[in-house]
Amino acid sequence: MKIEDIGEFGLIEYLKRKFSLSGKWIGIGDDCCFIPPDIVLTSDMMVEGVHFDLKYLTPEDVGCRATTACLSDLAAVGARPVGFMLSLGIKPDLDYSFFKAIFNGVAGALQEAGVRLLGGDLSRSSKLILSGFAIGRTRRPVLRSGASPGDYIYLTGYTGLAEAGRIVLKRGVSLKRYRESVKRHRRPYPQVKLGQKLKRVASSMIDVSDGLLLDLSHLAEESQVGISIHHLPIHPELIRLEQEFGIRAETLALSGGEDFELIFTSKKRLRKFWRIGEVISEEGIWFQGRRIRPRGYEHFRR
Amino acid sequence: MKIEDIGEFGLIEYLKRKFSLSGKWIGIGDDCCFIPPDIVLTSDMMVEGVHFDLKYLTPEDVGCRATTACLSDLAAVGARPVGFMLSLGIKPDLDYSFFKAIFNGVAGALQEAGVRLLGGDLSRSSKLILSGFAIGRTRRPVLRSGASPGDYIYLTGYTGLAEAGRIVLKRGVSLKRYRESVKRHRRPYPQVKLGQKLKRVASSMIDVSDGLLLDLSHLAEESQVGISIHHLPIHPELIRLEQEFGIRAETLALSGGEDFELIFTSKKRLRKFWRIGEVISEEGIWFQGRRIRPRGYEHFRR
Repeated sequence: MKIEDIGEFGLIEYLKRKFSLSGKWIGIGDDCCFIPPDIVLTSDMMVEGVHFDLKYLTPEDVGCRATTACLSDLAAVGARPVGFMLSLGIKPDLDYSFFKAIFNGVAGALQEAGVRLLGGDLSRSSKLILSGFAIGRTRRPVLRSGASPGDYIYLTGYTGLAEAGRIVLKRGVSLKRYRESVKRHRRPYPQVKLGQKLKRVASSMIDVSDGLLLDLSHLAEESQVGISIHHLPIHPELIRLEQEFGIRAETLALSGGEDFELIFTSKKRLRKFWRIGEVISEEGIWFQGRRIRPRGYEHFRR
Repeated sequence: MKIEDIGEFGLIEYLKRKFSLSGKWIGIGDDCCFIPPDIVLTSDMMVEGVHFDLKYLTPEDVGCRATTACLSDLAAVGARPVGFMLSLGIKPDLDYSFFKAIFNGVAGALQEAGVRLLGGDLSRSSKLILSGFAIGRTRRPVLRSGASPGDYIYLTGYTGLAEAGRIVLKRGVSLKRYRESVKRHRRPYPQVKLGQKLKRVASSMIDVSDGLLLDLSHLAEESQVGISIHHLPIHPELIRLEQEFGIRAETLALSGGEDFELIFTSKKRLRKFWRIGEVISEEGIWFQGRRIRPRGYEHFRR
């Protein structure tokens, strides 16, 4: 049996069983882990050729994205970010300016969130590796497991944009007409302040990193509920991409990853956010009345 | 200017200036970073072909070493380890048993130290990558910067063994005659309990990861002092290696890395540990009366 036969989520299940925690500690399987009374930790690794392509991204972009992925995990549990560390693998014959540009990207993303770089590690590596680690604080992390039937499902912003940006960059299309998409792929923004505010109303929360449907399915599984999506906001640039290249806008919005918006559930009727559906007791993910199989990004799967 | 022209320590200097911290926070440049009042964090990344060779190490060994490197950093500041996270990059077509074996190695090292695996990240990667993060607690971390002239320098155990083990494995020499060396390379042990005890007597501390001389030079630089080494314990297996293959035992003990013993300074006369020298006010590293240039492991340097 190969690793790719098990798949990323199968491997995570194995590790959850092997390294189970007791008491109020929270470990493998949520956006962050939690050490009572108030420490939250998360990590995220990006590898050249797997998570990004240096043909379409600058070193600043790459630094920004690695930082954002970690800060977004803190946002997804409603934590206040405190510090960030970056372990970097890099080719020795790259320009020093490339190295500095990565950390300019890191510094920019950290500054917006008011977070400091605390440390990390440097290593030679033939492929660029950015392995980030963030620490935050909250006494009551919002988990994936808190949703109950009847809760509304909310989304803080458009999804599919980052993936649209990647496609646009890869195809060499004129970037002017896809500004938002390209920006979202290059310099995504973590919803750190929003996550802390939503803590007051959210019964469960997760960030859009693997794709809306796949992330919703993680939330559904941890909460042991089903999800019914009625409505999905589609950004005009996705519609343009569909018209120009026949890439379905709905598919992008449902399955595109790394938008770093937040999905949360709440009993309350809120006006500020898109209400995209509701939590149901019947298991499965339903989109406009049809049961669908979540697709999105999963490592190792063939 | 290339990254290899700057060298690992030059890059660290750049990052120290760019990401300086205020107050009691401690960031880049020590074994761990410190968030007052009591949180200590560290990270360590190991890349296949750079830090280890799968020809000579099992996946259990690799998991153990990555875990030990992080726990040893916590030991070096006298912290109590609390949790560990591992981001893993791995080839999809490897056997599932290989994946499980890595985490058996991790679990073994964590169990001995009473630490839990809290989380991490999984990614595809053509080379095996283990990027570890550890969190520990202490209200008063022992830093590299606390040594003063007149302090004695102590060492908790033999150095050069791990490097001897690597050489023995690489040369295909009979392993029976180099048991300790091979064990130290394959399954190093972090001095976690000792580090916490030494906190009471140590004015400064560092673990042997880059090599005794290089690690001493880091300590000297941060403390703005010089180091004079009078005496160096040499393990019998290093002498055997010198006799058999002409590899100088003293060089191995001075420059071999990844032994994960602790070097500390103290005003006190202690009997339990090897007193190898003393802190002096004149800068530089001196070995038996001669000034020497520290050599050890530095990434990127040509």
